[in-house]
Formats: sequence, structure tokens, C-alpha cells
Amino acid sequence: MGDFVADDRTNGQKYSKVPNYWTDLGSSEVSPHTSPTTAQPRARDVVPRRQIHLYENAKKPTKTLVMASSSAGYFPPVSQGSSSSSQSPPTAQIVDDDSENDDPLDSGETVSFKRKQKQPSGLRFLSAFTSNGTASRQTTPSPRSGTPNTTGLNIIGAGIDGSHNTNAKDGGPLDWYVEGPGRRVGYEDLTAIDWIFEYTKERQRLRVLYSSATGLLGYARQLLDASQIWIVLILTGLAAGVFAAAIDVASDWLGDLKTGYCSAGEDGGRFYLNKFFCCYGYDGISQCRDWRPWSLALHITSSGGIWFIEYFFFISFSVLFALSASVLVKEYALYAKHSGIPEIKTVLGGFVIRRFMGTWTLVIKSLGLVGVVAKPHTISLMPSSVLQLRPLFGNINGNEARKREVLSAAAAAGISVAFGSPIGGVLFSLEQLSYYFPDKTMWQSFVCAMTAAVTLQAFDPFRSGKLVLYQVTYSTGWHGFEMVPFAMLGIFGGIYGGLFIKMNMRVAQWKKAATWLPGPITQVAIVALLTALINYPNFYMRAQSSELVYSLFAECSKVLDDQFGLCKTGAATAGTIFLLVFAAILGFFLASITFGLQIPAGIILPSMAVGALFGRAVGIIMEIWVHNHPTFFLFASCEPDVPCVTPGTYAIIGAAAALGGVTRMTVSIVVIMFELTGALTYVLPIMIAVMFSKWVGDAFGKRGIYESWIHFNEYPFLDNSEETLIPDIPVSQIMTRIEDLVVLTATGHTIQSLTSVLATHPYRGFPVISDPREAILLGYISRAELEYNLNTSKHPPRSLPPETETFFSHQPLADPRTTLDLRPWMDQTPLTLPSRSNLLLTANYFQKLGLRYVLFSDRGVLQGLLTKKDVWYVLNGAEETRKTAGANGLSVNTGLTREDGQGEERGLLNRNGDSEDGASIDPGDTPIL
Amino acid sequence: MGDFVADDRTNGQKYSKVPNYWTDLGSSEVSPHTSPTTAQPRARDVVPRRQIHLYENAKKPTKTLVMASSSAGYFPPVSQGSSSSSQSPPTAQIVDDDSENDDPLDSGETVSFKRKQKQPSGLRFLSAFTSNGTASRQTTPSPRSGTPNTTGLNIIGAGIDGSHNTNAKDGGPLDWYVEGPGRRVGYEDLTAIDWIFEYTKERQRLRVLYSSATGLLGYARQLLDASQIWIVLILTGLAAGVFAAAIDVASDWLGDLKTGYCSAGEDGGRFYLNKFFCCYGYDGISQCRDWRPWSLALHITSSGGIWFIEYFFFISFSVLFALSASVLVKEYALYAKHSGIPEIKTVLGGFVIRRFMGTWTLVIKSLGLVGVVAKPHTISLMPSSVLQLRPLFGNINGNEARKREVLSAAAAAGISVAFGSPIGGVLFSLEQLSYYFPDKTMWQSFVCAMTAAVTLQAFDPFRSGKLVLYQVTYSTGWHGFEMVPFAMLGIFGGIYGGLFIKMNMRVAQWKKAATWLPGPITQVAIVALLTALINYPNFYMRAQSSELVYSLFAECSKVLDDQFGLCKTGAATAGTIFLLVFAAILGFFLASITFGLQIPAGIILPSMAVGALFGRAVGIIMEIWVHNHPTFFLFASCEPDVPCVTPGTYAIIGAAAALGGVTRMTVSIVVIMFELTGALTYVLPIMIAVMFSKWVGDAFGKRGIYESWIHFNEYPFLDNSEETLIPDIPVSQIMTRIEDLVVLTATGHTIQSLTSVLATHPYRGFPVISDPREAILLGYISRAELEYNLNTSKHPPRSLPPETETFFSHQPLADPRTTLDLRPWMDQTPLTLPSRSNLLLTANYFQKLGLRYVLFSDRGVLQGLLTKKDVWYVLNGAEETRKTAGANGLSVNTGLTREDGQGEERGLLNRNGDSEDGASIDPGDTPIL
Repeated sequence: MGDFVADDRTNGQKYSKVPNYWTDLGSSEVSPHTSPTTAQPRARDVVPRRQIHLYENAKKPTKTLVMASSSAGYFPPVSQGSSSSSQSPPTAQIVDDDSENDDPLDSGETVSFKRKQKQPSGLRFLSAFTSNGTASRQTTPSPRSGTPNTTGLNIIGAGIDGSHNTNAKDGGPLDWYVEGPGRRVGYEDLTAIDWIFEYTKERQRLRVLYSSATGLLGYARQLLDASQIWIVLILTGLAAGVFAAAIDVASDWLGDLKTGYCSAGEDGGRFYLNKFFCCYGYDGISQCRDWRPWSLALHITSSGGIWFIEYFFFISFSVLFALSASVLVKEYALYAKHSGIPEIKTVLGGFVIRRFMGTWTLVIKSLGLVGVVAKPHTISLMPSSVLQLRPLFGNINGNEARKREVLSAAAAAGISVAFGSPIGGVLFSLEQLSYYFPDKTMWQSFVCAMTAAVTLQAFDPFRSGKLVLYQVTYSTGWHGFEMVPFAMLGIFGGIYGGLFIKMNMRVAQWKKAATWLPGPITQVAIVALLTALINYPNFYMRAQSSELVYSLFAECSKVLDDQFGLCKTGAATAGTIFLLVFAAILGFFLASITFGLQIPAGIILPSMAVGALFGRAVGIIMEIWVHNHPTFFLFASCEPDVPCVTPGTYAIIGAAAALGGVTRMTVSIVVIMFELTGALTYVLPIMIAVMFSKWVGDAFGKRGIYESWIHFNEYPFLDNSEETLIPDIPVSQIMTRIEDLVVLTATGHTIQSLTSVLATHPYRGFPVISDPREAILLGYISRAELEYNLNTSKHPPRSLPPETETFFSHQPLADPRTTLDLRPWMDQTPLTLPSRSNLLLTANYFQKLGLRYVLFSDRGVLQGLLTKKDVWYVLNGAEETRKTAGANGLSVNTGLTREDGQGEERGLLNRNGDSEDGASIDPGDTPIL
Repeated sequence: MGDFVADDRTNGQKYSKVPNYWTDLGSSEVSPHTSPTTAQPRARDVVPRRQIHLYENAKKPTKTLVMASSSAGYFPPVSQGSSSSSQSPPTAQIVDDDSENDDPLDSGETVSFKRKQKQPSGLRFLSAFTSNGTASRQTTPSPRSGTPNTTGLNIIGAGIDGSHNTNAKDGGPLDWYVEGPGRRVGYEDLTAIDWIFEYTKERQRLRVLYSSATGLLGYARQLLDASQIWIVLILTGLAAGVFAAAIDVASDWLGDLKTGYCSAGEDGGRFYLNKFFCCYGYDGISQCRDWRPWSLALHITSSGGIWFIEYFFFISFSVLFALSASVLVKEYALYAKHSGIPEIKTVLGGFVIRRFMGTWTLVIKSLGLVGVVAKPHTISLMPSSVLQLRPLFGNINGNEARKREVLSAAAAAGISVAFGSPIGGVLFSLEQLSYYFPDKTMWQSFVCAMTAAVTLQAFDPFRSGKLVLYQVTYSTGWHGFEMVPFAMLGIFGGIYGGLFIKMNMRVAQWKKAATWLPGPITQVAIVALLTALINYPNFYMRAQSSELVYSLFAECSKVLDDQFGLCKTGAATAGTIFLLVFAAILGFFLASITFGLQIPAGIILPSMAVGALFGRAVGIIMEIWVHNHPTFFLFASCEPDVPCVTPGTYAIIGAAAALGGVTRMTVSIVVIMFELTGALTYVLPIMIAVMFSKWVGDAFGKRGIYESWIHFNEYPFLDNSEETLIPDIPVSQIMTRIEDLVVLTATGHTIQSLTSVLATHPYRGFPVISDPREAILLGYISRAELEYNLNTSKHPPRSLPPETETFFSHQPLADPRTTLDLRPWMDQTPLTLPSRSNLLLTANYFQKLGLRYVLFSDRGVLQGLLTKKDVWYVLNGAEETRKTAGANGLSVNTGLTREDGQGEERGLLNRNGDSEDGASIDPGDTPIL
């Protein structure tokens, strides 16, 4: 199958194009047309050795000659469509327009990108136009009332903003003079955004705003426009601070609930207090009478009985919390699972995932974080809190790039409150998450992160004046000889990270392959049970991570209540060391099983805990060593009376190293730790540990945990780091060649013929050429824009008949009232490169510009097309996956719909509001990203 | 003059192209050729209404018909070349090949970009190939021994690295299969770099390195390659730390020398000690007997005499230091003047300024900083310290983009040691300086900045354990009501910044216009005298800025030795307030005169000082208010026994606000101040003040001080911030149209004809088209590559005769031994856009990709060209300047050569080592950037 030119592929075989239908952007099939009016394509010297097949003048298509679409050579020849040389006419296959399942590429499995083809669907005007969902539903036909039905698309034009485009939605002559990237309908779900277009649009909007602004009113409008973003950011920051404080308190309460309850107040009326507040005013936790452990509540006195009953309650509550979180996630918001960071990264990289940022995700995420693992992992929750405010802010809502700026800032605020580290949050957002990070985004992120931190500090949930529970300060410095154990901790951190990622991915792959496994909820229950069973007997694992981390970080001289016995001296320390290391190893295994389950839990705090456990153990060993051999030459710099080694600092460095190994971040970790300790003193050791950790970790594999999950889930995230190795081959070996593309001619089409093209081919866009003889490239029209225009023109007010002629080029003689000019909706200035270009250069363009597609033309003649996802495949070395998938019947999709079959389908595929959760969500405040 | 199509320009008049010859990249003239073999251009439907004139088949050009080159319509018609419509044959002018001065555009004034044409010059292989300058001189002809003489160009190919290219320098068939952006000669001085090309080259290099690496040796080579950058960065950091410590101590000594000298030791043998070290061990400065004021040394006892003699010494030393610094700058390193930040920003933005980073600049800068203004403004010095290490590091040296990464990191280290703020340094580099800042640059900058900070701390030049002199910590927090004065300080900071920029630029413009002014050295002397005269009587101005700032920041309860009487109470405070405000106002005026003189002085510390003076005054006022009205309702939150208001915090906030107003930075200032105070407590007030300051400052004008200087000096810095307003017009109104371009045909040229094209036209590059009838775009060749190839082919080993045919396209019948194929040196894949594109989109491409030029073609036919500088002109609204300059006889240059005529010429134009300073520099270690 496929029109495969073997002689050109000698080198490029390995990087051959992926199956076209997977790629959502403009990969197209060639389809020589059987319509009697089709002129026989003539070979011409401009395009030698080729026959171009295209839709032309297709007035009454009933049957279509489909040439199989794959340009890749690795597909086993399928019987229906066998390979043919480019000189001879391609072997054709006759299929009905309606029976796409006969398409050799469609093996019947549901594929997310294919769906549109089965439900040819129109558009509706969403909240970008009206802040009220109900109103917008009144103005457009109901989803179920017939065509045009809804696909959840926003109308975004090249004009000023949403509200201006409504004037021109009938294809009127507005902004025609701008022969630019064309007007656009909004992005569909699971497609890539066009960064350059979005930025250009924003600049155009600003330009209009500034040039139209005269006098005081104009100035006021400018000011209002400019202040929108700040209002959004400050509100986001405030919300983040409030949420974080609430989650801290609530998760504390739930965590403590595993061991007992507060019996203060009349009739235990203060049961809602956590241990700390319940015992507020007592000299120490041990003096507290109001906090009643379960064993006491049940009047059990035998020590075995106490142990057993507390064990039982611990396990029960753990499983209960985990289960309820998991059920909530499954029922209401699938995207609330995991840490969400891989998804945020993908969204910031320019991919549209609707629902991911919905109201329910926020709610479930909050409940989940509070409920299950009880970690203040609020990062991925925070961006969502902006949601409720968004409809007020049209200028941000209307621009996908600006939305992503706000999301960046919100992520920074999330880290800021999670670690009490506003600057660290900004740098995290910059280093780990953001794709484009212009200067102003930095300040925006900073304002958002600071607002969040200050709000959290104002609430002071721990009544300690500290931003987060595990914030510490040290009174002593470090000594030169400690550099060695610090570097060692770094190396261990790297090994831990590398092994963790390998193990975690191994588990995930195994779960994917093991079809006999129970459903996700049962899995969660089993793992929770296992975790609770293992954790309870171990002193350190029983505690909440944040509490544990705090104790591990703390300096012994400042600790009043040595809850974990970390400050013991003498013979007792051996046991402590053993327990610490044992807990670290157990933690490693449990974390690698847990991360990836369907519960909203992150990896940062567990990694920190594991690293801190190990670090503290090393610190105690060092302390003993120095204590026993004070005269050893290395320890000469120790002052006699002061403790020479502070084990707490080893814990913090171990935590940094472990975090570095898992996430492969650098600056952000150092800054977060710096803000936790508040002293420049420890920056150098932390830096060195993180550096070693990154180096060692990179030896295991270049991808951090988030990148690994992105890769595993096959999210189309195009990494723009420069270290990605790109094959140095001509792009002509990879691009979808014109022979394999569905291209449209500028003239000769009707509404009906275009509708049938859309119905037949699932591709996300179609290049437009002048005429079949020359194939001079005129532009590129996306499926969404084409679909929208065809639908609107068929319905009032235009109500054009299906025979109406459509044009993509200037037709001076055509009557604009009886013909459909699609030029304003076509990208007339797509980025084109010569087909001689090499892939290195092309990939650079994709990464730097955030393009969706590049067209290749030689001397103006279209030669081929490359989409973002094609490049993504090449850069991710996904060809093995593809080969396997291809052999399996081509059931390839984004993984978003793949991971747990039926469960995921609901969130992604039922976008028309006909599922039970869809029904309960007001469509007015749906997707913000 | 000029082939000006009036009907197309109705809208674009305002944005018309600048004079072509200013633009260094590829603006070209059209020149219909008189050679008898020239085919008469035929009009063709593809390019209607146009006649394309080009060099074709020019075998024996003796005289050339030059059509005047400007595409801009605003030039007054010059008598030699009058305007003509595009339909009629252009009015021609006959000029000799050698007499370019008859060219109507060349009015005889020396123009930097024009120079190359007068000295047709070859190339030499610089240190990229051999780390030893002497060796490289032996392998290539000496600069004076004849052609090819040196222009200081490095050979940079598209190949792996410098050493590989030597194999292919004769145009052999290496890497021909990569039909990419072409092989390149290095960049000439004052040209823009091609970011995408550099990044692609680096990726190609890495790919080859990784794919060729097998076994242990290969792995070792990879490791070595990867570690180069870290070695460079760490050495840079170390050097920065050492330099900063040395400068701190030395500048302290020189500063103290204005008041007295150290008489300790036998015969005053310890005269080299500054006051602090001289008096080390004494209880207080006032107890110190070894430090002898000048009055005491001269045995003057009357108080009037003392005052007079100290005044005299103060003035003398001030003027002496200023003068010597100025002379050093003028004689040895012109680029050492100013703060250097505008220049660094321009270089990081992708402009090549040789010498700017030379050894002498470093030396002079260090001496200058020590000598004159005695400020630890080491920022722009630090990058240069990498210089000496560079020849060892080929892989960085060979790539302009990677060099800029190192420069970014070095700038971060500079700020890090200047303010004791490593994270602030990284953010400064990111926010203010860097153009491209990929993730890995952040970590690199961080490592460099941290190394520098730690090194400086290890030296501990102030023996205080603090990184910088003015580092403080506060023991108290702030109260809600203080928000009002803090915000007020922010507003004042903005006003100060706005006025300062206006005033400073006014002064600079006035100096530029006032031709009767004395030379720069005299100016420095006068200003130094004036400053000293004014400063001495004022208590605060007399001190060094860093000392003053420290005292202003300090908390009174922690001050032992109230040198400035800032902690007085009662009636004395009125005088203090007056003196503080007065000093602030004086400082404002003096700074706005001083910044821009030919001395190596920055603006950051003076601004901080002014802000701190004012802030402290406000703080004292608040303190008095609270003290006198403790019952006022706002002050209810004050605790009774503790001082409620800390004036020092007002000083720090005032300093932040002033800095914000002047530089318009945000995050970096907050972080720098945060690192100075070490407490999260004051981040919020500082943030608010900086925010107000930026808003208010922006109301005065969008440009900060550095951007203003970039604008004033007309550096070709293409701002990539999104707030730049870009006119929404089709690019066809701005581009240099094909009628106005010098284009080359793919065939029909000889070495001689191309040489004469180069001699006749100063443009930096030439589009290559298929043939004059069709004008199908084939590629683009830069002047440097063309020149290099023509020269090398004329000389051994090839020794081709001038009649040799040259090709830009595949010629199957041509004998490669007797013809010159220029394809490998041509950019065969230039970025092309349709000429319909609008400017918004095009500018986005330029900014995001760092392009040097974009070609416009419709259906493969070349329509025009736009260079980075063209875009720069439009974005900077420089058309007014251009108009004036155009009327003045077209004496337009970058301003680098403009500012002080003859003085600057030396630094920039004598690159062949024949000036006195050139002779003293080993050519082996010349320009690194």
C-alpha cells in the first residue's frame, strides 16, 4: 500500500512517515477522482516523474477512488492496496463514501482523531462570546436538535477578538485586506495550537486597541485591557493561597484521623480539629488529653490490642481514603489523576486538552489531595482555580497562547504554596513546564506566585509563621570534608532517580500489557492496602510525608519533641540508621507502584521523603564517625564544643538529590531548597549534589519522570531542548509527499464536493493548489475552518445550495452572493521550505516557532507536508512503537484514550454533553484550555 | 533615484525601506548589464509590470550600468540618477568599477559597512583551528604579505567543526549531500548572526559526535566535549570572584586615598592598605591612629586649612582617577566605556561586535572600575575574563550561539558578585540581557553565578562574612500601614527613572549636536571636577556609593558607628532629612550627566544610592510621625516597646524602586533585594514598590535606560518583547523589491564578473535566481562566502583564471576542475514567505528565529527581501532619523563608529593589526565575540 518511492528512501527508511491518519494536522490522502469531468493529470517538467492526483471539480461524488494513504514503507503490504511505483498509475481501491471502515487503515478500533469523520459536525459559539453558557445555548441550535451539532469549538478569528468576529462570521469582507494566516475557527480537542498565529493575533488585537484609542476613554480601555491579566493573576494567587491553606488543614485532619480523633468540646463537638489544633495550648503532644487515639476510644487497654486496633484503623482509613479519591476521579474527572504535571507540560507545549482544566478536575483534585495521600501537592490544581474567573476576561480567553501564559503563572503559584518557595515556583515553571517563556511571563508568574505565598502565610495554617510545614533554618555552617558525603548523596540521588523512573515505567508497561488486571479502582484499593500494611509497622512510614520530612530536616538542637527518635545518641543510633534506610528502600518501591495509579498523587514529596530518609541516615553515620574519631585529620576543621555535623542538612541535601534524580530539574530544586532553609550557606552543597544527581541520572536515560510519562502516554509534546538528537537527513525522506496528500484545487469545487472530501478523509487540513497540472501552492486550510464554513453557508442566513461553487483564489467574475469564497479562512501565508531542506533545520523551525505544519515547495510547486506530530515521531524515536502498532492493525492513538480503555473514553470522547458527568456540568463554563 | 512604484506605496510610505547600503544583509542594487551577450529581459506573465535587471553572463565587465539603489521614496532626487517608472527602462549611470565614490549613494564619508569593498580581502584561519595564534599565522599568508589578506573572519562551515572544515576549504565535495543552509565563512564585524543556522550547526556537530562515538574512546570524547562548557563556566565564575574581590579591595583603597593614607609599618610601608585594613584591630575608625588624613600628613592644624586641604585632595584625586581612566579607555579599549550593558544586550541579541570582548577591554575595564568611580560594577567585565580560556574550547568558540550562552552566564556571574546575589544574577541575565535563553542556559548561568559568589565569599574582601558591603538583615517586620509609603516610594522611583532617562538622553543628544564641545577626555575632567566640587561639601555624597548604601540600608539598632548621623533623634533629624533629599536630588543630576561619558561607570549603584537616600528620608519622616503620634489610628498595630518603623527598610525599598524605574526590570530587582536582605518578609513591599515603579516609569516611555542607549546608539537590537507595536501592513510595502535588488543568476557568471559585482555593490548578500526571465528563487549567498570563494579559487591550490565560469545550480556537463560551483556556500533553503504576508507575521519570524533575512516569493518567483535591520528600523520607528540622515548626505552608520568620530574608528576599523594597540595584541587571541 502507499505510493512508495523506493529509490528515495534508502537512507530515510528508519524515519519513514507515520501512518497519516494518526497525525491530526493536514496529513492527507491522495485520491484520484473518478468524476467524469476530471481532466487527466498531465505530466509536466516542473514536477517530473510524478502524477498528481487530486480532487478537482468534484460535483457529484458517489464513489471515490482511494489511494492508500501511507507514505511509510514499513507497513506490510495489505492485500487491498498493494505497492506501486510512482510512475505507474496507483493501484486503486473503490470504496463507498459512507463505509470508511473498508478503509484499510481503519481497522475498526475507535481512534480519537477519526471520530470526527463519523459524526460530521458543525460548531457552536461558546463562552468566548458570551460569558453565560445558557445564553450561548439559546443562540445556537441545541446539540441534539440537529445540524450543525456541537463539537465544542470556539470561533477565533484573525480579527480583534471573539466579539468582533461575530460580525464577520458569515464570511463577509471584513479584514480581507490582511492576506495573512487566515481567519480561524477555534482549535479542536487534542490538536496542536499555532503559536505564531496566536501571537500575531494578539499583536494585531493590541495594535487595533492602541490605534483606535483616542482620548480619555481610549486610554481607560487600554488600561482595562492591560489590567485584566493582573486581576486574573492576583485572583489566581489568592485562590491558590486559600486552597493551599484549606488543603493543608484538611489533609492534616484526615491524616491524623488515621490514628485518632479530637474529643474536645461538648459531645466531641470539635471532632473537626486535627491533632495539632486539638492539642493547642498543651505543652507537648504527649501531654494532650483531648486527642483520643482509636484504641482509647474503644476502651482497649492491652498493648497487643492497642497495636492491633490502631493498625486496623490505619489500614481502614488509608484504603477508604484512597478508594473514595479513586472513585471520585473515575466518576467525575479523569484528568485529576496523577500529578498532572506531564499533562500541564503538554498543554503548555501547545496541545489542546479540553476538560483537563475543567471545574470538576479542580474539585476532585482538591478532594483527592485532601483525601488520599494527604500531600500538599497542589500544583496541578492551582491553574484550574482560574477557571471560574475566566469568562470575565475575554482578551485572555480568546487567545490560546495567553491562556498558556496564565497557566504557567498558576503552576508557579502551585509550587510556591507547595514548597513555600515563590522564586522556586517561577523557576520551576520556567525550567520544567513552560515552552515559551517571554520576559513578561516571568513577572506575571512571579506576581502570581508571590500573591499565593503571601496569602498562605497570612492564613498560617500551621500556626508556626512558616509557609510550609517543613521549612527549617540552620544555625551552623558546613565543613570542607562534608563535600564528599554531599557528593555521594548526589550520586545516590541520581541512582535513585534513574532506578525509580525505570521501575515506574516498567510497572506502567506491565500494567498496560496485563489485560487480566482488575480495574483501576481495585488496583488503587490493593495498593493502598499493601501500603498501609507495610507502612504501619515502620515508624517513619506511618507518619505523613510532610511531617516526616520536617523532622528529618530539623536540627536536633532545635527539636523539642523528638517524635521519631532521630536525635538519640549512642547505641540507639544503629537501629535508627537501619530503620531509616529500610524506610527509604520501602518508600522507593511503594512510590514506584503508586505513581501512575488513578489517584491524584504527585511524586515530589515522596521523592523528597525517600531522599531525606537516606540523607539523614548518612548524616547520622557521619555524626557518629566524627564523634568517635574527633582527631581524624579530615575533622580538624571541626570546632571542639559545637556539633560538627548536622544530620538535618544531610537530609535536605539527600532530598534535593533525590528530587533532582527523579525530575532532572536543577536550578529550581536548588532555589526551592534555598528558600526552605533561607540561607545562602547551603546553596553550594545542594548545588553540587543536584549536579551529581543530574549527571548520574542522565546516565540512566535522558528523560525525567515527567518526560517519561509524556513519552509513555504518547502525548504530542515536542521537546524544544537542544539536546534532542535529530537525524541529519533531507526532509524529503520524511515528509508526506504530494502523491500521498489530499490536496484541494483553488477552483472547481462545490460545497457538496468539499463536504464529501471532509466526510471521506479524516485529515486535519488540506493544502490548496492552483490547478492539477502545476500544483502551485496557494495555501492551507484546516479541517475545522472548512467544516465551519461549509456548515454556516448551508444554513441561514446564507442558505447556499450544495452546488454552490467554492473558490480559494481570486475570481473576478464570480458573484459573491452565489459563490463561496474561502480565502479569508485559508492560511495564505503558510511557512514553506524547499524540499531540499534538511530535517535539522526543519525541526528547529517547529521547535522555535511552535508551528503546526510546514509545507515544502520547490519553485512554488507543492512537494509535501510535515506536521508537528510527524516531527514529534521522529524526535521521540517512536518508529519502533509505530511498527509494532502498525502490525497490530494500526490501533494507534494518543494514549489519552488508550490508557484505561472505557474509563478514559468518557472524558475525552463524549464532548457533546451526553454522558452523566457531562450533563451535570454547565456547558457554559466548560473547557478553558 | 530608485525604481519606485508609487501606486503600491500609498499606505507604506511611512515605513519605506531604509537606504539599502546601510543594511548589511543582502540589500542589493539592481543593475542592468551592458554586456553585449545580455539577453534583453522579457516581460512575462509571472512577474507582470516589471522589468528585472540583473547580472547575467558578465564575462568582461569594464563599465557597469548602475541603477541607483534606493527603494525608498523619500530620497530627494539626486541629479546623477533620476527617478523612473518601473515600466520604462531605468535611467542609467555609467561608473567605473574602481570609482565607487561616483556612486550617488557614496558621499565620501567612511561607512563601516562600505569598507570591505575598498579593501577586497581574503580570509585567514583563526584560533578556531589551532589554539596557537602563531601557528595559525604560519599556515596562512601574513596579513601584509599580499592577498588573501585578513579580515578577521573565521571559517565556519556547516560541517562538524572547524577542524573538519579545513579538509573541505577548497570547495571539495564534502557534505554536499546536505543541501541545507550552506557552508559559511565566519561573520564579519557588525553583522547579525543567524541563530537558526548556529543551532542547526551545533546539533549537526553533536549528532556526528554521538554517532561516530563507539567504545570507550568515543564515550570519553563525548564526555570531554560535554565538559568543556562546564570548565569554561567554572573558570569564568572563579575569575569573576577573584576579580570582584580584587576590585573591591583596590577600589576601596583608591576611594580612601581621597581622604588620606595608611602610615602603618616602617616608613609608611603599608601605604597600600585601605582605611579598613589599616585600622584593623582598632576599636573603631575614630580610634585609628595609623590612618593619616592628608591634612595631618601636611601638618595643617587650622580647621579652615584642614577643610580646604582635604577638599583640595578630594578634588585632585577624583579628577586624576577619572582622567586616567578616561585616557586608558580612549587609548586602549573604547568598548570599556559605559556600563557595557547595552552592548552586551546587543551582542546577545545576535550582533557581532569584535573587540568588544577583547583582552584590552577587560584590562582597561578593571583598571577603570578600580580607578575612577570606584564602583563594583563588574558586570560587563566578567564575560571578558573567559577570553583567555577560550582558545582551548573549540566547540564553543566555533559557534556564535554557544558563545552567547557563555556570555549570558558570565553576565549572571557579574551581577552575582556585584550584588552578592547569584539567583538575582541569573534572573537579571534572563530578564534584561538574554535573547534566547534555553533551559540549559539557566543552569549554566546558575553554576557560573554561584561559583563566582562562593569564590567572592571565600575571599571575603570586607572581612564581614558578607558577599557585598551593603548586605543587611533586619530583625523586625513591617506593618500594614507602611504599604502606603512603600507604594509612594515606588511611584517616586518610577518618576525618578522616567526623568532620569529623559534627562540623560537629552544630555546625550545635546552633546552629539554640540560640535563645539571639547573632546571626551576634557569632558570627563570637567564633569569629575564639578562632581567633586559639589560632592565634597555634602556629607553623603562624599562617601563611596557602596558605603553610603550600606549605611542607608542598615538598621539603627545594629549600627555601632553612626558615620553619617543617620540614627540621630530629636531636632537633629530635620537637618538629616534635608541633607538626604538634597543629596538625592544632586545625585540625580550628577548621574544623568555622568552616565554616557567615556569612563567605565554603571548606573545601577548610583540609582540605588539615590533611591536609598530618598527612601531613608521618607523612613525618617515616618519614624518621627509614629514617634510623635503613637496613638494615631493607623499606628495601632505598632507594639509599644519595639521601634515600629525601620528607616533602613525604606531605604532598601526606595533603592529597589529607583532601580526599577531606571532599568524597568522587575523580578531580578526583587530577587536581588531579597538576597541582600535574606528575608522573605520584605519581598512583598519590594514587589509592590517595583510594580508601581515600573507602571509609573512606563508612563514616561517604554524604554528603560539600556534600551534607550541601544536606541540612541542605533544598535541593531531587535527587541523580541511582545509589546512592541508593529504596523499591520502587508510586507510588500516594506520589502526591498526585486527591481531594487542586485540578484545573481545561477549560470552565466565568471569569477571576474562576480568580483566586479562585489566591488560595485556593498550589500551583504545577493539572492540567486534561476534565470532573468523567470526569477525563480534558488537561494541566497552572503557577501562573505562569495568573497572568500572567489579569493581562494583565484589563488593556489586552485588558481582558477578570472574567466572561470561559476554556477549556483547543478551543471551536469561542467568540469568541476575548471569551473567553480558555489552551491555548497549558498543558502539553498532560505526562509521564504509569500509577498502577501503581513508584517506582523514576518516580524514574529524574525524575532522568534533570529533570522538575518527573509526572502519573499510568490509561486517560486522572487519578489523581494527583508533584512533584520529593515525590520529593526520599522520596529524602532527610526524612519525619522533616517530621513534626516538621508538628507545630510547619507552618512548613516551604526553609531558605533559615529559617537566620537576618530576615536572610535580605531577600535572598529583597524582590524588588521596595524594600529598601535592592535600591534600589541597577539592576533591569536583576538575577538571572541
